[in-house]
Amino acid sequence: MKVVVKLTGKLFDLGNVDILKSYCRIIRDRFLRGYRFAIVCGGGSTARHYIGMARKLGVSEGWSDLLGINISRVNALLMNAALGDIAYSYIPKNVDEVLTAWSSGKVVTLGGLQPGQSTNAVAMVIAELVGADLVVNATDVDGVYDKDPKKYSDARLLPKITINELKNLISSRSEAGTYELFDQLAISIAERSKIKIYFVNGFKPENIEKVLDGVNVGTEVIYT
Amino acid sequence: MKVVVKLTGKLFDLGNVDILKSYCRIIRDRFLRGYRFAIVCGGGSTARHYIGMARKLGVSEGWSDLLGINISRVNALLMNAALGDIAYSYIPKNVDEVLTAWSSGKVVTLGGLQPGQSTNAVAMVIAELVGADLVVNATDVDGVYDKDPKKYSDARLLPKITINELKNLISSRSEAGTYELFDQLAISIAERSKIKIYFVNGFKPENIEKVLDGVNVGTEVIYT
Amino acid sequence: MKVVVKLTGKLFDLGNVDILKSYCRIIRDRFLRGYRFAIVCGGGSTARHYIGMARKLGVSEGWSDLLGINISRVNALLMNAALGDIAYSYIPKNVDEVLTAWSSGKVVTLGGLQPGQSTNAVAMVIAELVGADLVVNATDVDGVYDKDPKKYSDARLLPKITINELKNLISSRSEAGTYELFDQLAISIAERSKIKIYFVNGFKPENIEKVLDGVNVGTEVIYT
Amino acid sequence: MKVVVKLTGKLFDLGNVDILKSYCRIIRDRFLRGYRFAIVCGGGSTARHYIGMARKLGVSEGWSDLLGINISRVNALLMNAALGDIAYSYIPKNVDEVLTAWSSGKVVTLGGLQPGQSTNAVAMVIAELVGADLVVNATDVDGVYDKDPKKYSDARLLPKITINELKNLISSRSEAGTYELFDQLAISIAERSKIKIYFVNGFKPENIEKVLDGVNVGTEVIYT
Amino acid sequence: MKVVVKLTGKLFDLGNVDILKSYCRIIRDRFLRGYRFAIVCGGGSTARHYIGMARKLGVSEGWSDLLGINISRVNALLMNAALGDIAYSYIPKNVDEVLTAWSSGKVVTLGGLQPGQSTNAVAMVIAELVGADLVVNATDVDGVYDKDPKKYSDARLLPKITINELKNLISSRSEAGTYELFDQLAISIAERSKIKIYFVNGFKPENIEKVLDGVNVGTEVIYT
Amino acid sequence: MKVVVKLTGKLFDLGNVDILKSYCRIIRDRFLRGYRFAIVCGGGSTARHYIGMARKLGVSEGWSDLLGINISRVNALLMNAALGDIAYSYIPKNVDEVLTAWSSGKVVTLGGLQPGQSTNAVAMVIAELVGADLVVNATDVDGVYDKDPKKYSDARLLPKITINELKNLISSRSEAGTYELFDQLAISIAERSKIKIYFVNGFKPENIEKVLDGVNVGTEVIYT
Repeated sequence: MKVVVKLTGKLFDLGNVDILKSYCRIIRDRFLRGYRFAIVCGGGSTARHYIGMARKLGVSEGWSDLLGINISRVNALLMNAALGDIAYSYIPKNVDEVLTAWSSGKVVTLGGLQPGQSTNAVAMVIAELVGADLVVNATDVDGVYDKDPKKYSDARLLPKITINELKNLISSRSEAGTYELFDQLAISIAERSKIKIYFVNGFKPENIEKVLDGVNVGTEVIYT
Repeated sequence: MKVVVKLTGKLFDLGNVDILKSYCRIIRDRFLRGYRFAIVCGGGSTARHYIGMARKLGVSEGWSDLLGINISRVNALLMNAALGDIAYSYIPKNVDEVLTAWSSGKVVTLGGLQPGQSTNAVAMVIAELVGADLVVNATDVDGVYDKDPKKYSDARLLPKITINELKNLISSRSEAGTYELFDQLAISIAERSKIKIYFVNGFKPENIEKVLDGVNVGTEVIYT
Repeated sequence: MKVVVKLTGKLFDLGNVDILKSYCRIIRDRFLRGYRFAIVCGGGSTARHYIGMARKLGVSEGWSDLLGINISRVNALLMNAALGDIAYSYIPKNVDEVLTAWSSGKVVTLGGLQPGQSTNAVAMVIAELVGADLVVNATDVDGVYDKDPKKYSDARLLPKITINELKNLISSRSEAGTYELFDQLAISIAERSKIKIYFVNGFKPENIEKVLDGVNVGTEVIYT
Repeated sequence: MKVVVKLTGKLFDLGNVDILKSYCRIIRDRFLRGYRFAIVCGGGSTARHYIGMARKLGVSEGWSDLLGINISRVNALLMNAALGDIAYSYIPKNVDEVLTAWSSGKVVTLGGLQPGQSTNAVAMVIAELVGADLVVNATDVDGVYDKDPKKYSDARLLPKITINELKNLISSRSEAGTYELFDQLAISIAERSKIKIYFVNGFKPENIEKVLDGVNVGTEVIYT
Repeated sequence: MKVVVKLTGKLFDLGNVDILKSYCRIIRDRFLRGYRFAIVCGGGSTARHYIGMARKLGVSEGWSDLLGINISRVNALLMNAALGDIAYSYIPKNVDEVLTAWSSGKVVTLGGLQPGQSTNAVAMVIAELVGADLVVNATDVDGVYDKDPKKYSDARLLPKITINELKNLISSRSEAGTYELFDQLAISIAERSKIKIYFVNGFKPENIEKVLDGVNVGTEVIYT
Repeated sequence: MKVVVKLTGKLFDLGNVDILKSYCRIIRDRFLRGYRFAIVCGGGSTARHYIGMARKLGVSEGWSDLLGINISRVNALLMNAALGDIAYSYIPKNVDEVLTAWSSGKVVTLGGLQPGQSTNAVAMVIAELVGADLVVNATDVDGVYDKDPKKYSDARLLPKITINELKNLISSRSEAGTYELFDQLAISIAERSKIKIYFVNGFKPENIEKVLDGVNVGTEVIYT
């Protein structure tokens, strides 16, 4: 079973060492049972720190993105180091390098790839290229809600959502900026390749195990 | 003046050697007068040939895109060879390589970069990174129309269009598939960095000169 | 058993999807039984299309070769995509990269490497470096003939030919240009390392199986 | 005049945007007057943050260094972005890449290169390879003191120090860990190539100008 | 068991083909039994030949080191070729490449990495990064002596030495130049990661086997 | 004027430092006057030393060639170091890298590229790709003779030779092995691109100047 896991950058911000340890334990355990993993890491607050400095220095949006991408790669390197010898010891920086890394049979860890696209999109691009069975998007909320859960206390968690509903949700919320689930590139790849996606709370590493074991958790994306 | 030119892949399909020669002459002339160029080439019918074979062989969408990207790079290599010593003698394959190539001070020629994104998006990503003053999108029609000019004989060429109108136009036409001006990634980069864009008929190389000289031609994208 | 297969570029011209599928099936089957493969792909008619355009644009012979080499690499990428996870997911572009790819234990697919040498020569260079037991040169005729079979209806297929006879045959026919079996570089590597070579009809994929099973087919090169 | 500037990572910690801006202005100004620069950036507190997390995750010293090196490279990328088109748009990751970058004639920005060596050592390795006339080590104190100025209020700034005195100073203070001026590798390169070195307070960018103009500031290393 | 072997460059000078053959036999044998190896080769007299020429040509110390490093890599390539298919077919040139090579699971052969550091230091850097259980430093004497055995006939071989004693020994003998066991960088990595090290006579390949089998030979470094 | 100089590896064997210094002086002088150079270095006796050891270790012909190629690259690095800042500070290892290096505008120094081809062929491949006006093949005899000058005292130096005569000469002498002027690949590139070639005595560096100034020296290759 081939799985792409997207880890929110916030996991690296808080110094949540114990959560990261749990991920390492789970991934090692499953890897030894034959699962293949690519772990895509977000940038988190360190990325935002550098982007903030860059803007004050008059740096363009594209180059600010590059700084954020490089921090997401350091997060990937931290995961790589913590995973030890089951990980491919290099953080791929473009699609060619991802494929070479994947060819090794080891766990691949990476961050962003290109300005203008989120690490959510990266997870989908990689999932499509390696023919992943599943993408687990480990975010900082329990899944997809009908409203922004950080604004509305009555927001309701959706156990399932169609790709079209997700697309509309993202368009309607784009002004918010803070509730970033997915971007258009991620959606368009999901649409064309119909890749199985789960949104789960990344601060509970056991959610990954549940998804891998077919237990309902978070929100599943449905193609109709 | 820093300019990104997007050449439709159709220019390489038809064996339009004389048009390509005109482009080379114009670019060389301007380069020697101090203009900086990045030339992004589309894939055209050879790309479609390979993508067609790939699908028959059961290849995934992501890998089919890789084939198309590689053909767009061969088109870029042809332009590179034709431009001779004013061109950086390598086709960059990712953002890092584009920046290194641009650092050389020479004309940079490239094709696609990543599955899931068009070469139009590539042109915008590069324009933002190198701080281009202008993107000239040389397509196979005279600019942006209010309707698809290949379907409606009364379609009207728009001399100007706001980025929001362009965005809506693209969303509404996405089902068509054949009238591909821009994709969402290209739009979102245009929006955030407000890069000057002209859509012109690429089969008339003199259009590039007009745009560079500030003469009205094709469609200009307006930010409000 | 380590095998280098040279596939004529013509297999990619005709859109012979079913033949390519057969090759994939055969290679996968043998790979799973422990055979190691490097597949060297020719450029075919797409290569000639680009070389033709290049010459009209006044491009030198060396750069025209580069264009042909790049198309042969796209052919290799198509094979790679069709072979799926048994293939090393990268097309090596020089000898160092070929060796790294080979080190992975997977099927390696490649095209040309350098201007001035044919993909036949590439097959021999690689065979020597990886210590191949066998080179199968899958061409567009049934093997080596005493005369050019495309000109003479009484040309006779030779079941065996010595390397010296092959060398003389190539020298005497060099003016023809179209009946390209091998080049001098290929011959000189064959001579010095005495690599087992079979010339077979590549449009009959089962020929590969016959050669691998020791069944007589096509023409065998003999060292005396 | 070829100059290597070592910037303490602390400049990137504090979000001292105005100081970084001053460096950019000074370097641009001198670059346009013919000076060549390599800027080596330290890792600072972000590096220490990641190293701290790494240790809690049980990561080895070598890999912890790799994390710190990668953060120093993000600092270098920030400088690069802020310098704009006078900088070579790539952060070299090993000696070969540094030399290629230097060959471009542009300002080269880099961070660490290898576990086990400080960015002070990197500055010396690069200075020797490019034949620098001068290394300016911009640290967080006013230069070299006879005692640790952070511990002893009566520590005296030394206007000059011989390389041997510096060597002894470093050996005797190695237990402290926090007062890191130089390491043994940096010393041994200084010794063998007798490279001119100044230690200055990096929080006063005008110090760089003073050193370049031959005005006495900080501490000069003397070879006898 | 993960082992780093440092081979003195002198093994490649003398054309000691039989000794190299023995190393290949021993390494292959152990590799097939599950041992992992990185083999770091010194430069030897060919390196000194090039460094000598470089100095006469007025080349700097840094570039002279680069020449020596490149010869040590040719020695590594010779070992690689002799080891055949158990070796990763590429000589890594920096730490990133070493880690990628190590990820392959094959024997990694390398030479120097950076000017200013010995191949002894390289062996320690690599040992720390791959988490080696053991470093065997195969030198041209029987181990570490209390005095320089090439000068004093009554020099006594030390079966054990503490890292501090080794450090002092190296400092006190640095003027000699010819009795090069280790450098400061190697010492500091040994200190911080407490890596098990044996110094043995490299002209007796069976010493490697003894060390691997826990038989006392040469000098062991002790951490207290 | 674009010039490719092939230097016989024997220049690096003998430790002919003064001859190398003269080459550096001449090349620097001409470079500053606007000449562009690629310097292709042979392997010489150090290459033969390693090839000899490789054969005794049972290494294949292809890998023995790789060893020789790597030594020719060390020779190129020595030239590079001696040329200083007018040289591109990297030894290209394949055709793509040669073109990137050439794009820098600096002097490019290189050795061999691929097993099975001589550095004479490399010089021709590069000359064709960069559009060189001239190849100067600096060998260890005064030019091309009607007989092998090392065997026959009455061998006569030919001031001119047609490419066909050269081709025949090479074929007829191939058994000798030691009198290696050119190989078939070099000839075929010369034929198709009609590149101006001079064979001169490389031990007299002033011959390069003569050829560049149009003074008759050595043997010129004529195309009819």
